[in-house]
Amino acid sequence: MMTTRYQKGLEALNSYTDQEKGTSHFDLMKDLDSIAPDIGKYIVEFAYGDIYNRSHLDQKQRALTVLSSLITQGEGSLPQLELHINTALNAGLSEEEIVEAMIQLIPYLGFPSVINAVKQAKRVFAERSEEKVFA
Amino acid sequence: MMTTRYQKGLEALNSYTDQEKGTSHFDLMKDLDSIAPDIGKYIVEFAYGDIYNRSHLDQKQRALTVLSSLITQGEGSLPQLELHINTALNAGLSEEEIVEAMIQLIPYLGFPSVINAVKQAKRVFAERSEEKVFA
Amino acid sequence: MMTTRYQKGLEALNSYTDQEKGTSHFDLMKDLDSIAPDIGKYIVEFAYGDIYNRSHLDQKQRALTVLSSLITQGEGSLPQLELHINTALNAGLSEEEIVEAMIQLIPYLGFPSVINAVKQAKRVFAERSEEKVFA
Amino acid sequence: MMTTRYQKGLEALNSYTDQEKGTSHFDLMKDLDSIAPDIGKYIVEFAYGDIYNRSHLDQKQRALTVLSSLITQGEGSLPQLELHINTALNAGLSEEEIVEAMIQLIPYLGFPSVINAVKQAKRVFAERSEEKVFA
Amino acid sequence: MMTTRYQKGLEALNSYTDQEKGTSHFDLMKDLDSIAPDIGKYIVEFAYGDIYNRSHLDQKQRALTVLSSLITQGEGSLPQLELHINTALNAGLSEEEIVEAMIQLIPYLGFPSVINAVKQAKRVFAERSEEKVFA
Amino acid sequence: MMTTRYQKGLEALNSYTDQEKGTSHFDLMKDLDSIAPDIGKYIVEFAYGDIYNRSHLDQKQRALTVLSSLITQGEGSLPQLELHINTALNAGLSEEEIVEAMIQLIPYLGFPSVINAVKQAKRVFAERSEEKVFA
Repeated sequence: MMTTRYQKGLEALNSYTDQEKGTSHFDLMKDLDSIAPDIGKYIVEFAYGDIYNRSHLDQKQRALTVLSSLITQGEGSLPQLELHINTALNAGLSEEEIVEAMIQLIPYLGFPSVINAVKQAKRVFAERSEEKVFA
Repeated sequence: MMTTRYQKGLEALNSYTDQEKGTSHFDLMKDLDSIAPDIGKYIVEFAYGDIYNRSHLDQKQRALTVLSSLITQGEGSLPQLELHINTALNAGLSEEEIVEAMIQLIPYLGFPSVINAVKQAKRVFAERSEEKVFA
Repeated sequence: MMTTRYQKGLEALNSYTDQEKGTSHFDLMKDLDSIAPDIGKYIVEFAYGDIYNRSHLDQKQRALTVLSSLITQGEGSLPQLELHINTALNAGLSEEEIVEAMIQLIPYLGFPSVINAVKQAKRVFAERSEEKVFA
Repeated sequence: MMTTRYQKGLEALNSYTDQEKGTSHFDLMKDLDSIAPDIGKYIVEFAYGDIYNRSHLDQKQRALTVLSSLITQGEGSLPQLELHINTALNAGLSEEEIVEAMIQLIPYLGFPSVINAVKQAKRVFAERSEEKVFA
Repeated sequence: MMTTRYQKGLEALNSYTDQEKGTSHFDLMKDLDSIAPDIGKYIVEFAYGDIYNRSHLDQKQRALTVLSSLITQGEGSLPQLELHINTALNAGLSEEEIVEAMIQLIPYLGFPSVINAVKQAKRVFAERSEEKVFA
Repeated sequence: MMTTRYQKGLEALNSYTDQEKGTSHFDLMKDLDSIAPDIGKYIVEFAYGDIYNRSHLDQKQRALTVLSSLITQGEGSLPQLELHINTALNAGLSEEEIVEAMIQLIPYLGFPSVINAVKQAKRVFAERSEEKVFA
């Protein structure tokens, strides 16, 4: 039996998700469900089924690429940045690597965008560490 | 004798540069020299001396981070993107990894920005390959 | 007697406003009144008096054009997006058309900006529907 | 026999294309073919097969939505803007409607982005009119 | 007799224009004339008649404000940046002040946008200096 | 004894800071201290030590340049905009000049970004005026 794009995407998405820590794509998709359920379907099928499943880059490299793009898009994407700082940690990037990528962008974005991103990272790290304690 | 930030930066910059292939930061700095020579100095001292010399991420990760940011900034940064596709290749990323990072950004930026970046990569790869032949 | 640009603009603005539902340009203008009253004057005279009153596009097309631009400008314009989701509904676009325009932008903006916009639309639709009940 | 997403997408794309006038998505896809052929596949399958084929908005509304977004993204997307001014004309929007949508965005983007877009429209209209003469 | 907004705007625009040096708003308006003549009218009436004629900031401060915004908008606005580097020089800012404002933005925008702007300034300064010689 | 870049930067930063009114860079740096203390160090050394200390522009002109850039970057930078409205007031720009610079940007950015900025200015002015009363 053929594996559908949706099943392949769900597997990929799960491999980037730790449902016990931080917000996840599944929370987001539940929130969109009553108004635009197809968006969740496209995220699973296209973003995770088609794109994240490709070769040439490993999970940590893909997470780093997406993180760098969201930092660059500015605070407008901060809810998405929160989601992808969680994704990056789940993919195996350390807190130090995530903050370091932000600092690496100072010469390319200036301080304001980087500062906003680092403050968001601080909130996510704190949130996950509290959850760890109470889990 | 103390190593100055400028010397440290120059060493870092050299480690990302292949002066025989593609455009380099040194071409750029020469171009700025008659109007704003301090910008070249700040690139060497601050960007390369302070930032690129930090720990936690290796050269390929730093190049991937910067590349992803420049693709996200849009065609406005295409001359800079050209420079940093060269830098990424010099840092050891393969052509496949660079194009793959661009494709990974489709779900986060949409097709137009990614297409502009891939067309720029195609030009840089071709240019370097011609230079290789005639070198 | 000649109709002034201000009068013409006020009429146009009124035709896009339902003061009983959602936030309106008049709320915004009241908020700006103590610090920069001329901005409200320019909105009425230039944006509505000069621009919205032109021919070639109808009200629904103008609302769709502005909505697509604000979604593209990113979450930075979310307070303005809220205002113009209301304006679009007042101009006669349905909730389905508004969400569909957002989905249409996924290939051009990526998921993050569209998701932020859809979540904003969900809030506006809910708010207007509550107001309907209690009106 | 089931119609594949690729076939559905190709049909949709063809309905927005006039291969005798202006640049088309097929020119673009040919250009990407040697470096990243999957991008053309995703444009056909995802952008046109999944998204453009949806209901609630007609072809002219979809073209207007995309056009407004690309104008807003700035000159960085001008090669894409050129492509989608052609697409908008093929979808049935008139030259007057396209220029009017640009003018409608002055209060939301300011003059510079709109002026760049109008100059691009002027080039596309002229190019198509010459082609018409010599066809 | 009442001075119209158009006349007031034209006077303001003339005070920022040196028709013998560099490109001017009048060149731009001529270029738009065949496709969207109203844009030129709005530039004169609204931008120059209403806005540039206000109090609280002098010509040099207004030119500096606009210049900083266009640098920040990225290369997408480079044709507009060219126009407003000329405008800033006509308003009395020196070449040194203009380049210095660009350097002041490095910590807020990063190097790439600033470098693109400085290279544009270099071209404008060279062009005006040649014109001076042959005038 | 040589003055270090850090000392020079601290002096410059102090000259733009009124620790009794509004949020300051020192509040920001304290907030970043537990996660990325080097960012504060780079702000002092590079932004204030190297850049703000240069010649050709005075404090008010530098503040106006930075303010115009942050308004242009959009609401994404509003926390930074808050900081730099305070900095601009400390540098000697009046409330009227700050609001006027925002209005001057309407023709270059459109109404939405300017409105967001003016609302932020209103909050900062009110906050500082309350602090004045209770000091």
